[in-house]
Amino acid sequence: MPRYALKIEYDGKPFVGWQRQTDLPSVQGAIESALAKLEKRAHTIGAAGRTDAGVHALGQVAHCDMEKQWDPFRLSEALNYHLKPAPVAIVACTQVADDWHARFSATERRYLFRLVTRRAPLVLETGKVWQISQKMDVAAMQAGADRLLGRHDFTTFRSTICQADSPLRTLDALDVEQVDRMDGAQEIRFHVRARSFLHNQVRSFVGTLERVGAGSWSPDDVTTALEACDRAACGPVCPPHGLYLAHVTYPDDPFDQS
Amino acid sequence: MPRYALKIEYDGKPFVGWQRQTDLPSVQGAIESALAKLEKRAHTIGAAGRTDAGVHALGQVAHCDMEKQWDPFRLSEALNYHLKPAPVAIVACTQVADDWHARFSATERRYLFRLVTRRAPLVLETGKVWQISQKMDVAAMQAGADRLLGRHDFTTFRSTICQADSPLRTLDALDVEQVDRMDGAQEIRFHVRARSFLHNQVRSFVGTLERVGAGSWSPDDVTTALEACDRAACGPVCPPHGLYLAHVTYPDDPFDQS
Repeated sequence: MPRYALKIEYDGKPFVGWQRQTDLPSVQGAIESALAKLEKRAHTIGAAGRTDAGVHALGQVAHCDMEKQWDPFRLSEALNYHLKPAPVAIVACTQVADDWHARFSATERRYLFRLVTRRAPLVLETGKVWQISQKMDVAAMQAGADRLLGRHDFTTFRSTICQADSPLRTLDALDVEQVDRMDGAQEIRFHVRARSFLHNQVRSFVGTLERVGAGSWSPDDVTTALEACDRAACGPVCPPHGLYLAHVTYPDDPFDQS
Repeated sequence: MPRYALKIEYDGKPFVGWQRQTDLPSVQGAIESALAKLEKRAHTIGAAGRTDAGVHALGQVAHCDMEKQWDPFRLSEALNYHLKPAPVAIVACTQVADDWHARFSATERRYLFRLVTRRAPLVLETGKVWQISQKMDVAAMQAGADRLLGRHDFTTFRSTICQADSPLRTLDALDVEQVDRMDGAQEIRFHVRARSFLHNQVRSFVGTLERVGAGSWSPDDVTTALEACDRAACGPVCPPHGLYLAHVTYPDDPFDQS
């Protein structure tokens, strides 16, 4: 059976998350239903990262196995047709080797988190950014973020229901960028890179760094929280709707050819 | 009665446009209803530009007269409270002179139009950009845009139902900018500036320039269309949902103080 890699964009708002759940709308379920329109049978697709309810994706990656030999572009077009009106789009599609795996072949995940500080409601970006009123000290946030880089036991920054065997991870980047906006408000983008992440890790980072940006925590408090290896030492976990799975890296990017 | 200037952001999607219409949702009606929650009576507000159905605003400006003396910040907060859940936000509020007028005191309007060329549906920006499949020649579009600058009879580029006395307008800027996107797609932003605009003028410009970007029209064809002074010579008018009223300029910006 030929295997295809799919690069997927979605708005997480109407979904319980990536993972299929009986009778509840999931991104995985939406794509598997679209696949069933093309080849009538049960489909099971695997993704690089299982995003939570409300989390978006710019570049989620999954793979699917088909009976028929499909032209990759026609496969993506047919899936996009059947996905409507769900806010899920196949933005790239390519054939891969039978043993290529969206999750296990991945060598890096990149997340983006968008935070906007403005008093008036952000009516043009509802559900797309985390909005808070208080202006943030970006330099302090970056100083706090730097304390998290490298290989650590991230027990403090993972959900208590995280199923990973080990809390050890290597954080390769956590860049705090301030970007210009037309409304003059402060937008902060967190660019986070690692081989893999623990459950709720990015939202635990951002929620903690918000405390630093607000002046309630110092960068030293971030180090103390990290070294505590205790979930209770984490700052408040921030909401999901500012979070985007931005990119998944593979040794030979299968989408470079397409 | 003290007069207040309101700077307003809105998502045009659920509205029939700025202007109040009996029994139909309008931006003006939403704000007037919110004002009636603060001072129980009929309110009539005037805006700098009457946007069409589906057109958004980043910086629409209107003025309102109140009986009570309001602290401008508290007035904006109270309006935002009562505007929910409509996608309308008062992003700035300031007291102005009794003879200050959102429409007649304005010396310039700026519009932004967003066009994205991508094949897969833009599920994270539905209703916020005009999406087409074909990649555009931006240099050709700018060359076409340059033919429209200056003072002209813009009969070709105004709706047949335009109520302006004269088709003469002075176009001060029509800049065609290509911006980087995380998905690698081509986004084109049109920045348009004039003292005032005719009905459907920006959408007529963008629809015509799309023909130039696609290679169907040359920049010379734009000049020919302009000189025809004939609505039938216009390119296809583009859809409203990529259009934003971005900014209104006043001799002394009342929002600079607030």
